Amino acid sequence: MEHIPVGVHGFVRLDDSMADDMSVVNAARVSFARQSSEIHDELSGKDKGLIRFLMQNRHGTPFEHNSFRFHIKCPLFVAREWFRHRIGSFNEFSARYSEVPDEFHLPELSEIRTQVGKPGSYSFEPVSDEIAMDARQIINAQAIIAHAAYREMIDMGVAKEVARMVLPVSMMTQFYWTVNARALMNFLSLRMESNAQLEIRQYAQAVSEFFKITMPVTYEAWIDNGMTAP
Amino acid sequence: MEHIPVGVHGFVRLDDSMADDMSVVNAARVSFARQSSEIHDELSGKDKGLIRFLMQNRHGTPFEHNSFRFHIKCPLFVAREWFRHRIGSFNEFSARYSEVPDEFHLPELSEIRTQVGKPGSYSFEPVSDEIAMDARQIINAQAIIAHAAYREMIDMGVAKEVARMVLPVSMMTQFYWTVNARALMNFLSLRMESNAQLEIRQYAQAVSEFFKITMPVTYEAWIDNGMTAP
Amino acid sequence: MEHIPVGVHGFVRLDDSMADDMSVVNAARVSFARQSSEIHDELSGKDKGLIRFLMQNRHGTPFEHNSFRFHIKCPLFVAREWFRHRIGSFNEFSARYSEVPDEFHLPELSEIRTQVGKPGSYSFEPVSDEIAMDARQIINAQAIIAHAAYREMIDMGVAKEVARMVLPVSMMTQFYWTVNARALMNFLSLRMESNAQLEIRQYAQAVSEFFKITMPVTYEAWIDNGMTAP
Amino acid sequence: MEHIPVGVHGFVRLDDSMADDMSVVNAARVSFARQSSEIHDELSGKDKGLIRFLMQNRHGTPFEHNSFRFHIKCPLFVAREWFRHRIGSFNEFSARYSEVPDEFHLPELSEIRTQVGKPGSYSFEPVSDEIAMDARQIINAQAIIAHAAYREMIDMGVAKEVARMVLPVSMMTQFYWTVNARALMNFLSLRMESNAQLEIRQYAQAVSEFFKITMPVTYEAWIDNGMTAP
Repeated sequence: MEHIPVGVHGFVRLDDSMADDMSVVNAARVSFARQSSEIHDELSGKDKGLIRFLMQNRHGTPFEHNSFRFHIKCPLFVAREWFRHRIGSFNEFSARYSEVPDEFHLPELSEIRTQVGKPGSYSFEPVSDEIAMDARQIINAQAIIAHAAYREMIDMGVAKEVARMVLPVSMMTQFYWTVNARALMNFLSLRMESNAQLEIRQYAQAVSEFFKITMPVTYEAWIDNGMTAP
Repeated sequence: MEHIPVGVHGFVRLDDSMADDMSVVNAARVSFARQSSEIHDELSGKDKGLIRFLMQNRHGTPFEHNSFRFHIKCPLFVAREWFRHRIGSFNEFSARYSEVPDEFHLPELSEIRTQVGKPGSYSFEPVSDEIAMDARQIINAQAIIAHAAYREMIDMGVAKEVARMVLPVSMMTQFYWTVNARALMNFLSLRMESNAQLEIRQYAQAVSEFFKITMPVTYEAWIDNGMTAP
Repeated sequence: MEHIPVGVHGFVRLDDSMADDMSVVNAARVSFARQSSEIHDELSGKDKGLIRFLMQNRHGTPFEHNSFRFHIKCPLFVAREWFRHRIGSFNEFSARYSEVPDEFHLPELSEIRTQVGKPGSYSFEPVSDEIAMDARQIINAQAIIAHAAYREMIDMGVAKEVARMVLPVSMMTQFYWTVNARALMNFLSLRMESNAQLEIRQYAQAVSEFFKITMPVTYEAWIDNGMTAP
Repeated sequence: MEHIPVGVHGFVRLDDSMADDMSVVNAARVSFARQSSEIHDELSGKDKGLIRFLMQNRHGTPFEHNSFRFHIKCPLFVAREWFRHRIGSFNEFSARYSEVPDEFHLPELSEIRTQVGKPGSYSFEPVSDEIAMDARQIINAQAIIAHAAYREMIDMGVAKEVARMVLPVSMMTQFYWTVNARALMNFLSLRMESNAQLEIRQYAQAVSEFFKITMPVTYEAWIDNGMTAP
């Protein structure tokens, strides 16, 4: 599993990683000057206990000595939230250098929702079928019209960086994201929780699957810690 | 001067600061354990020389002991570039919590441009008056149509976070940005140079004016250093 | 209060700050595009509730739009732990540039302790009066001998950066530390807790007093949140 | 080559890495939405030119999508300078949890030097053989006496974290350091230059050898760029 599709156009792909549970154990054990020659390759019960202990007691730094390089394709309004996470590295598609392809996020009917409550305690409820269909058509039509306007300006010779001003935030973008497990857990803790916007939660879910496979003991300890990053 | 307008809707406002040239001198002098009682309040020629020395020799940390808190209003496509700068703090308007007002960036006729050259060595040239007028009308029309579609969905009861998907990246946003002089110089060095997009250069110019007034000796040393951040 | 002594030689001094509770409220309210003109200067009950809400729900970024510049003098082994905190700015006394003065941390008799338990669950107990007195004499003698050896090498013409190799980690150092309230709370949450070493806890306690006076509502919300940084 | 000795006790060991020149190229090419299927595994001349272009034009972020995990053993006064580099992850030996072994840095006779000039333009010259021998004996004697005093207090039951106060900064420590190529180049540019202290320059030299082998094109571009980090 190297590529998890999200929606029609989107995906989360793990490009490469340098990450296993043993990296946490070894980094923590340098506190006791355990030499590398003493370090076996398979996690013992004691190692697993150490990871759980570190997680519960907010010893965060041993979880930083690893690295995940993801390639993400997602709507721009999702990328906007993603890029708020400063501990990590990003390189993104540039609408200044390249033409933006005709790819936009279009929510499923079941994803069109209404907002109930007030700031701090929102919840979201389904809308009627008619409203969902109308809204979906509006979103779709806007994407088509906007991209046509964009194309027209490109054809007129207008610079890409100017023409793109008409494109909606539903447009797809893509980026590389390189991050360590500690920052990854922080991202997931904020973007998987029920207050996060549905669309980024779907991406966070995909990211978490790669995390789970790569560092299973750390993943489980994090889940058992209430998904709170150390 | 606390508020510099940029374009029709935008501005850069310095909300507060803890910043003067003396902060650089004092931070550097702690290397020599100069006690605070020995430190006078006015910059001497020697102090100015020290600032220039630090700048030229890439001693960056003494420039970090100060803080500027800006309030910015700018188009979303400008904010996107701004938020790539990770050393600093941001809080932004949320299109999940609040309705997006009917405010969009509309370039002046003279700002509609064409792109010449290839990646790495672009330049931008004016377009004909007709093309400029056509493009400006398209950008304007798209903003109006998109906001009407947005309003319609809001009126139908669709959640703000869903309805906003149709809004173009020319929409205005606003945010607080708190940053120290070292990260500020890094931002300016990248966003004032000729390769930066015109629109963010206008904002960077406004930011630089506040920097110049607040830390004039540091500003001048930075200019004389080719606008390279230490 | 601008200067809190710690031990015989040490202190925590607040050199300057740009920090009040209102900065948290204003940064959070930009999410709702509240204009600055609508913002009054005194905290209302609603403002205080907002700060508590942000603290409890891990909305950390609004706490970053402020700045404290501290001048600290402390033993080197305390500074070593302090500098592990990467979100913040440091400039320190340099033993390469300046001669190290004859100032060393000497624990009080009551501070000489023995360690009970094992990694992860240490506790510390008093030692007998004799042991305390012996240990204190040893620590004192070592500082005197080491500084004499240092002075001798300096007098022989040996470079400061070489001669300082003999100096013990009880030597006093000093530094400027500029930090925002979020990073400050993270520092305090780790360095005021019972597992932190006694000596850095004393400094963290002094830092917390400045925090309390400067941002009383934030401080109280943080205490009520179990001293967990948002 | 996985382990480079430095001095008698020290070393730089590359524990693991996720780093090659292609990671720079791929991260940069996402700007143009080059799909992974189009990406070949071997660097072309065009790829090499791209890396050189990015380096010269201060496009730093593409150099961040890789990771080196080092295990370092070095004197504490070297580690102190190392830990000033905030972009990266550290876990270090703890003198609170473990007994400090009897290992100290002892400079070679040829490394005992005198300092000429003033702050900002120091240079270092050899001392006479007698002075070198005397200084080396003093440093050695101090390490022996200090460790004996430390051992005595440990035997008396004094807590390790208290007893260690007598230990000089020549004591060896060890740590894990995980860092990306951009931060690595910044470290090397500051710690390999002639103004850096001799002892950390030796370690930086060892780090640079691993960098050179792992990312040869990036390394060469960095050298040709005057060893200035992008």
